[in-house]
Amino acid sequence: MQYIKDYIRQNKDRFIQELIDLLKIPSVSADPKHSKDVFNCAEQVKKRLIESGADNVEVCPTKGYPVVYGEKIIDKNLPTVLVYGHYDVQPPDPLDLWNSPPFEPVIKNEKIYARGAADDKGQFYMHIKAFELMMRTNTLPCNIKFMIEGEEEVGSDNLGPFLEANKEKLNADVILISDTSMIANDVPSLTVGLRGLSYVEVEVTGPNRDLHSGVYGGAVANPINILCEMIASLKDENNHITIPGFYDDVVELSAEERKALNSAPFNLDEYKKHLDIEDVHGEKGYTTIEHTSIRPTLDVNGIWGGYIGEGAKTVLPSKAYAKISMRLVPNQNHEKITEIFQKHFESIAPKSVKVKVKPHHGGNPIVTPSDSVAYKAASKAMEQSFGKVPVPVRGGGSVPIVAQFKEILGLDSVLMGFGLDSDAIHSPNEHYGIFNYLIGIETIALFFKNYAEMNK
Amino acid sequence: MQYIKDYIRQNKDRFIQELIDLLKIPSVSADPKHSKDVFNCAEQVKKRLIESGADNVEVCPTKGYPVVYGEKIIDKNLPTVLVYGHYDVQPPDPLDLWNSPPFEPVIKNEKIYARGAADDKGQFYMHIKAFELMMRTNTLPCNIKFMIEGEEEVGSDNLGPFLEANKEKLNADVILISDTSMIANDVPSLTVGLRGLSYVEVEVTGPNRDLHSGVYGGAVANPINILCEMIASLKDENNHITIPGFYDDVVELSAEERKALNSAPFNLDEYKKHLDIEDVHGEKGYTTIEHTSIRPTLDVNGIWGGYIGEGAKTVLPSKAYAKISMRLVPNQNHEKITEIFQKHFESIAPKSVKVKVKPHHGGNPIVTPSDSVAYKAASKAMEQSFGKVPVPVRGGGSVPIVAQFKEILGLDSVLMGFGLDSDAIHSPNEHYGIFNYLIGIETIALFFKNYAEMNK
Repeated sequence: MQYIKDYIRQNKDRFIQELIDLLKIPSVSADPKHSKDVFNCAEQVKKRLIESGADNVEVCPTKGYPVVYGEKIIDKNLPTVLVYGHYDVQPPDPLDLWNSPPFEPVIKNEKIYARGAADDKGQFYMHIKAFELMMRTNTLPCNIKFMIEGEEEVGSDNLGPFLEANKEKLNADVILISDTSMIANDVPSLTVGLRGLSYVEVEVTGPNRDLHSGVYGGAVANPINILCEMIASLKDENNHITIPGFYDDVVELSAEERKALNSAPFNLDEYKKHLDIEDVHGEKGYTTIEHTSIRPTLDVNGIWGGYIGEGAKTVLPSKAYAKISMRLVPNQNHEKITEIFQKHFESIAPKSVKVKVKPHHGGNPIVTPSDSVAYKAASKAMEQSFGKVPVPVRGGGSVPIVAQFKEILGLDSVLMGFGLDSDAIHSPNEHYGIFNYLIGIETIALFFKNYAEMNK
Repeated sequence: MQYIKDYIRQNKDRFIQELIDLLKIPSVSADPKHSKDVFNCAEQVKKRLIESGADNVEVCPTKGYPVVYGEKIIDKNLPTVLVYGHYDVQPPDPLDLWNSPPFEPVIKNEKIYARGAADDKGQFYMHIKAFELMMRTNTLPCNIKFMIEGEEEVGSDNLGPFLEANKEKLNADVILISDTSMIANDVPSLTVGLRGLSYVEVEVTGPNRDLHSGVYGGAVANPINILCEMIASLKDENNHITIPGFYDDVVELSAEERKALNSAPFNLDEYKKHLDIEDVHGEKGYTTIEHTSIRPTLDVNGIWGGYIGEGAKTVLPSKAYAKISMRLVPNQNHEKITEIFQKHFESIAPKSVKVKVKPHHGGNPIVTPSDSVAYKAASKAMEQSFGKVPVPVRGGGSVPIVAQFKEILGLDSVLMGFGLDSDAIHSPNEHYGIFNYLIGIETIALFFKNYAEMNK
């Protein structure tokens, strides 16, 4: 559609500058010292929604960080699209690996580098700009609602209650989300499934204080050694997770489904080269594509204990800690998995230590329909903008809230993300391609057009 | 001896104040940012040696921190005692567990609390004060030399070359060291053996950058999981170390020797209660006393990797690290053990990660003679001051330099320490009893008297 392309071309520099302004706010929801920044970021999103033409814009308080809401209802008889996104970002650590400060965005090689560039500021802001485009060109073809939250990176604990309390306000026909990635810029894809998540923190206590490892070593349980042994025992030699009952609810795909899944473009040599690894390392009997989509995982996301400064210290520490997350697949339930993890981890602790398991957050895995009107509208929009029919894929990450949208609001989601796996989200030097940002705005505008027409 | 007791009583407050002044200097050799403090501490030791009556006092430079030397030669025909100690201290981490700042000494319940109080400032300073006592009361019965170094807590790397270069200057009949502990204040003991040490740091690298654990988890090796698995595999279900060749040179004690060793006063229930542990955790087939004296160990002294801040971050990190130390027993050789550890650790790494092993420092285990004149002089001195014959014990810690004294200078050492295992050396709230400090000064003066008389 020429008017879409024209509007984007004419406003490109401003679109980019507005995103850069948003990226400058260090809205790290995991870190209490950025609390003020997270609230500031919500106000900034509110301001941009109002400028773009939304009505009834408000920063809705929750027990944690607020949800920014806005809407444009043009005709109650037309379908309504609810856009979801999140304005909070991951912590930027480790800071020393960033080539430029994470909250001072820079453009290099046609990419914007900053924490949150792809996850999810760059992606949710495309929707606000596509909305502005439709408002200014008088082409908004259906109703639109925005719900941009500030706690996605810490588990969206307060979004469930918000949904429960605002069912009417959030009434819609479909939810549209850009918080996932495509296979490549020339291989567009739509996400039709996401893994769930169970995230726990464990603490192992040996003696009641740090000890001299010479005086006590060999006789007193070292909580680091014990923690390592406990973690190691969670997988067998085939990288199969050993927690009893862990796989009970996992849906095994048919041979046909697995064949279809493995037909997606993928080059193992390039994958290894890109990560500078000699070999991949996954559960025996499954391919890399399967490891990252249809199989559950158990990863230690952080570990610490004892002396970690310069030089050597011969301490037998009192405590050791780890943050452990499990990615879940249909039909695993995150609460059940957290519970069996906790029970199992406590059961394998030797008598010589004490163990605490603290659940962080979680979410259920989802599979979204690929035969709905909304999916077809999204697929057609991508075909129009990219010139290629998008591949349906199952993503390895988690957007736990998608399962809750279905459970609480009864709504399916369309997961139309424009990032790339190489965008380094959650890592140093996160970035988002300007190509992706602009084609995203274009594709979103096309989606609304298609969706309205297909619903007629 | 009444004159000894009198002098100590009259000068007690000053003795304590001088130690407190010394403890205020944060001479942490492991931490480069305390470099200036370590040098300052050497100057302070020099000043105190001069004040106490030593001649030829100098701060001898090495490639690292200096050795403070001083002497009093009264008659070349009399025996010479070389006193060794160290003025550097362990890092004070974790700081938040200290009840008072580590370098602001406080006296509570007749104990001095500060980093280095027992290890080793409080202990080597007893020798300077005993020397002062003998000088002021005109009772120094033999020659004395001091060698107080500043790198014991980081492996004494430069003391070997210092010994080599100063063999003549350091010429003596025996070395006297207070850097070990006794069984209890009413159960004096003398250390007749010490474990050696091999200390290494390992680095495991998975992908070339931190990854999103949802996008890559399950397919790419997580270096933390792998490090845990590798560490866990270093011990079997009997807590026996699995490194091939590790036990090859270990001297097994005879049934008789083990019986004698286990006859030392020890109460397992009190030991567990004191550490607040339900159970000890050692190599199968050996007692707790044996675990901490005649058996080698493998302890992780520190581990870190991934996200260790507040909250949750779903990162699959690029790197994970651990500091690992092994306590060695006769006749293990620390260089050989470091080498076989390195070889073994690299050999068990899966192809999906890269591993680096960096040796820190080490030292050989030792057994000192308990039938020498010097041992008898020490035993008699303790009997005189404590009213009980000291028990000969083998300590679990390491003073790696003791082996080098034998190898380079050809000298045996007497390990007459006055600390307690409960002094929390290398831990928060390190302390040293004033009783121990003062009785140490008394016993050292008695040792010199006995040693001179027994050599007549």
